[in-house]
Amino acid sequence: MPTPEIEQTKTQETVQEALHKILDLLDKQQLVEDLVHKQGGPRQELVESLLQKQHMAELQTRLAALHPADIAYILEALPPARRLSVWDLVKADREGEILLEVSEPVRETLIAHMEPEELVAAAEQLDTDELADLAPDLPEDVMDDVFKALPVAEREQLRAAMSYRDEAVGALMDFDLVTVREDLALEVVLRYLRRLDELPDHTDQLFVVDRRETLRGALPINRLLVNDPEVLVRDVMKTDMLVLHDDDDAQDAAQAFERYDLVTAPVTDRRRRLVGRVTVDAVLDFIRQRAEAERLNLGGLREGEDIFASVWASARNRWAWLAVNLVTAFIASRVISVFEGTIEKLVALATLMPIVAGIGGNSGNQTITMLVRAIALGQINPANARKLVTKEIAIAVLNGLVWGGIIGLFAMALYKSAALGLVMTAAMTLNLLVAALFGVFIPLLMTKLGRDPAVGSSVLITAITDSGGFFIFLGLATLVLLH
Amino acid sequence: MPTPEIEQTKTQETVQEALHKILDLLDKQQLVEDLVHKQGGPRQELVESLLQKQHMAELQTRLAALHPADIAYILEALPPARRLSVWDLVKADREGEILLEVSEPVRETLIAHMEPEELVAAAEQLDTDELADLAPDLPEDVMDDVFKALPVAEREQLRAAMSYRDEAVGALMDFDLVTVREDLALEVVLRYLRRLDELPDHTDQLFVVDRRETLRGALPINRLLVNDPEVLVRDVMKTDMLVLHDDDDAQDAAQAFERYDLVTAPVTDRRRRLVGRVTVDAVLDFIRQRAEAERLNLGGLREGEDIFASVWASARNRWAWLAVNLVTAFIASRVISVFEGTIEKLVALATLMPIVAGIGGNSGNQTITMLVRAIALGQINPANARKLVTKEIAIAVLNGLVWGGIIGLFAMALYKSAALGLVMTAAMTLNLLVAALFGVFIPLLMTKLGRDPAVGSSVLITAITDSGGFFIFLGLATLVLLH
Repeated sequence: MPTPEIEQTKTQETVQEALHKILDLLDKQQLVEDLVHKQGGPRQELVESLLQKQHMAELQTRLAALHPADIAYILEALPPARRLSVWDLVKADREGEILLEVSEPVRETLIAHMEPEELVAAAEQLDTDELADLAPDLPEDVMDDVFKALPVAEREQLRAAMSYRDEAVGALMDFDLVTVREDLALEVVLRYLRRLDELPDHTDQLFVVDRRETLRGALPINRLLVNDPEVLVRDVMKTDMLVLHDDDDAQDAAQAFERYDLVTAPVTDRRRRLVGRVTVDAVLDFIRQRAEAERLNLGGLREGEDIFASVWASARNRWAWLAVNLVTAFIASRVISVFEGTIEKLVALATLMPIVAGIGGNSGNQTITMLVRAIALGQINPANARKLVTKEIAIAVLNGLVWGGIIGLFAMALYKSAALGLVMTAAMTLNLLVAALFGVFIPLLMTKLGRDPAVGSSVLITAITDSGGFFIFLGLATLVLLH
Repeated sequence: MPTPEIEQTKTQETVQEALHKILDLLDKQQLVEDLVHKQGGPRQELVESLLQKQHMAELQTRLAALHPADIAYILEALPPARRLSVWDLVKADREGEILLEVSEPVRETLIAHMEPEELVAAAEQLDTDELADLAPDLPEDVMDDVFKALPVAEREQLRAAMSYRDEAVGALMDFDLVTVREDLALEVVLRYLRRLDELPDHTDQLFVVDRRETLRGALPINRLLVNDPEVLVRDVMKTDMLVLHDDDDAQDAAQAFERYDLVTAPVTDRRRRLVGRVTVDAVLDFIRQRAEAERLNLGGLREGEDIFASVWASARNRWAWLAVNLVTAFIASRVISVFEGTIEKLVALATLMPIVAGIGGNSGNQTITMLVRAIALGQINPANARKLVTKEIAIAVLNGLVWGGIIGLFAMALYKSAALGLVMTAAMTLNLLVAALFGVFIPLLMTKLGRDPAVGSSVLITAITDSGGFFIFLGLATLVLLH
């Protein structure tokens, strides 16, 4: 008896291997082309076309064996020209799925390379919820054609899916529902399922609705399997469960999935009518995208860059952040200029001032990181906030005396001036206090204003501790050392 | 006919409400205590004890209705004294699960407050894979008792689970497997399942093994449901699927779950024997924990702080980062001190130098963020790396001329010196070049050394662009303006 072989692990390593083999094939093809280019002649061209055909066939076989997400990964890693030649080899019936998986900038390059009819064909392979995700990147006439080709019910779904804001549960939702009535026996449900070719992905529960599509409960597949077939749905269905609303925040839904270890959750509209479901894979994608957006934002990039994008496109992606920082640096510079007279008399101040500003910024960012986390964990309320300020002040004083003391001793030893050392320690402590106060205040204020405290707080605190640090240190020095 | 009520959404908002009600009850109880404390007397004590009993009963009812993850959330948000009084009200049979859900520092405070017997009882409610997660925080004698109380098979599982490094698939794995043989009819499988009280959570597939526990395939529940009961497992089982190895990197497993939209995946040892499975909820927790660790690291915190932790504990959590930054700031300060003579002659340099250093740091961090992402996406190979360096250099020159030009014009206007403006523009461009080169070089080197390029790159590049920026600007000024 022949035994079926289990496919080997397809983790990162295996995908990397596939990538290298494809790069290899592309290199070989390039080599042949270069050869012909150099030597010319009809015979070389014949050899080229034969070898090329062989390479292309091998490439196509390799691509066909890969999951759309892996093809997407490989497309991301290829420089533009090769990306497009691989794209041309991808079977037309997989293009839609792959377009969904690639990143925004790569998607744009692929779509720009496709004919309208090709795009319409790719889009038509997708479910309406997937189509809604792709729609913003498609040319208008393509979307018009796709829209016209849809059955009426799906048109409605597409319109609904596209109407939600990006951060709403509705934008995560799909429409692959299996619904049952509560007065059926499990046996009937089992027979009904057997008539389907397959169940939607991630079906861990069937949704129980009444005639008006109002959600009445859910029948977990597990219960369907372990209970007596004669039992009614009503008697084993679950009614204590998470129900999402289509206009809830997607972020709240993601937290609920993490907290309650869900695979799917039903989504209802305001009238408690079932309109769709959210699956854990959509939640995972959402979490990854958010983490990536946060990472890019912290690093000062507006959006993910295709490493093969033009210099011009990349530069523009980085300008907003550089411009903001240039303005704050310019302000700090103007603060220093107020004390040019003092620095002229004691140039050591110019040497030491970046330390005071820098450590203030680091400390302020620590406080902000701690606070953003506490806000996300719901640990902040008016009573706690007061305690927290007291605690941060205590830490600032402690750190100011310890680290400010150390650096003060250094300054004293280097410049043979006890007064300079004391000014250094005092300025460091004061700037750490400024960092602590604003480090608590900025995220709280942003939350109160309904903004995400993780975005922009870092730039603000650094601007304050830079200008503040220079002002405190140079101001103190002017008062103490020059009079 | 009475209709079952569906429980309302339990998203963030509802949990917050529960938290506020509990805080309210705790406040009332405190009020009663304070009153008695002030007025004394046996009658007041009677009133107190009656009211307290009432409040406690209400608290207990509320807590009993909450999911363990929600109780964990509420415990996190309470100051230590109240946290412990709520903890005392939690039913003993839920303590184990809740200990798993709370963060490390809060878990420590709760465990420190519990008697050994209580801890043993809590631990014994857990599955072996959960126990392995909790074990490092439990006192040794408690673990000894728990270990002795386990059946032999589970002892082996626990020993195995505890032997994996934190970043291995084995550490994510659980042992809740349902296995079947390939020569059974689906009907037999269905009957077998019906004999179980319930299936393990997240059972989307049964694992098909032979007599030696070697993995042969998987039977998705969906196929079990839609296929004819007479069909054999062998004929409908899946053999093309993701198989993890217990010593694979957990990070690779997480990527595979995202990529292939999995709910569970089988885990085998080196001899292809099925040893466990990974479920998507464990993957979600892993991803969240990694994202949080990364966020804390970027913010300069060693680990998550309990906002109610002591000043001393919090300060120590922040010292490593401050110490590193103090050293780099000190080095930058020494670089400036080399040019004290120059600054004395032209004090405007002290005013302008932080701009050159600061923008260099921002730009370097942008390059690093872009590169870390590209490395994670597998976009970096030797051929691409060379192109990338060229591109980053081009962006640096462009940005240096544009932004350096703007700030140079400002400097020129402010200090009426064309030469100073030119030095400013040139220094800015050169420092952006340094930022670009090291911004590409540092993450590549770290990856080559097998380290995570996201950790520590930012501190390094900032140190280089600070000291480098001061050196370039002041050095150029010394050469051009003073000779």
